[in-house]
Amino acid sequence: MAAFAGDLKTIPARFGAAIPVDKGRELVVVNTHGTQVMDCWAFSRADVSEFMSMEHTRSKLSKVVPAVGDALVTTRRRPILTVTEDTSPGVHDTLLCACSPEIYEEHGCAPGHRSCEQNLHEALAEIGLSCPCTPPPFNLFMNVAVGPANEVVRDAPKSKPGDYIRLRAEMDAVVVLSACPQDVTVINGPGRTPREVQYAVV
Amino acid sequence: MAAFAGDLKTIPARFGAAIPVDKGRELVVVNTHGTQVMDCWAFSRADVSEFMSMEHTRSKLSKVVPAVGDALVTTRRRPILTVTEDTSPGVHDTLLCACSPEIYEEHGCAPGHRSCEQNLHEALAEIGLSCPCTPPPFNLFMNVAVGPANEVVRDAPKSKPGDYIRLRAEMDAVVVLSACPQDVTVINGPGRTPREVQYAVV
Repeated sequence: MAAFAGDLKTIPARFGAAIPVDKGRELVVVNTHGTQVMDCWAFSRADVSEFMSMEHTRSKLSKVVPAVGDALVTTRRRPILTVTEDTSPGVHDTLLCACSPEIYEEHGCAPGHRSCEQNLHEALAEIGLSCPCTPPPFNLFMNVAVGPANEVVRDAPKSKPGDYIRLRAEMDAVVVLSACPQDVTVINGPGRTPREVQYAVV
Repeated sequence: MAAFAGDLKTIPARFGAAIPVDKGRELVVVNTHGTQVMDCWAFSRADVSEFMSMEHTRSKLSKVVPAVGDALVTTRRRPILTVTEDTSPGVHDTLLCACSPEIYEEHGCAPGHRSCEQNLHEALAEIGLSCPCTPPPFNLFMNVAVGPANEVVRDAPKSKPGDYIRLRAEMDAVVVLSACPQDVTVINGPGRTPREVQYAVV
């Protein structure tokens, strides 16, 4: 059993959580069922207007998807989370937006369908923070590839039950995780069924 | 001579401009010297907290780079700019951040080096607007490719002098263009020399 097993907390399917992670501590994010995408954001606790940036991270790393050893950087170009371990095949996404009420409206869902965007802002509000925008997220376990004609190809996660990614905080941070409520496409697996996930701060 | 030649205005090298474009009008952006990248943003005039989103555009189009006929969408998923004509080879970028003071610090430049981020916020302020963040830009004529190992590959623009892209406003918008001040890498051509650009609203 993994060393962090005793510290695990659960995020219910379709919901999110804001998790303070002090500099030097690690956040372990567990894909309990293997099929669940988690949108991930990180904010500097000293100044939440500085947050993890996918566009700066791609620029800094000159790669589309961070891997073990890579630091994701903020809008001010400072490392905020470093990938220190990943038991999954390393298929994550930095290209796509968080799902939002407008996307579920496009899908023809009834009003009120939960979304990662809603989860982000609710989770921040629960700890007294806010962000005037929805930053592009780091989509953990989301299987998005760039095809030869520059097309964006979505598929089910390649992770298996219990796979986890470990992220070290490089500054005092708040990490927001959202167990993605997407149940129309196969992004959360062929069963199209959002699942709960787990995390630990170690 | 192009029909818009009499309407052209110039943006000096290293500077930006905020350009109101009413719904249905078109903004023609001319790469006067062929080597100059222009970062491009668009905001809804009715509510500047709604702005053109690269992550929603990639999601909506399922492609990395918009082409003729494609509409770029906002954070609220509404079309804001449609590419109606492009005389260049169509090589533009949606992956990389605007250059910023921190990037020039990384390059070892002296403090005060101009940046696209600075150009965005200065241009908005000149017309009495502001944005609390720096949205990921649509980098016109920027030659960025995704390699087979998901690497981000930067090269000089493929456009030639006088190439232009035509963007139709799908709502009353403010478009900000920044003639990118990058003079360290080859992103603005092998001469590493930022140049002036031109535009017209037709």
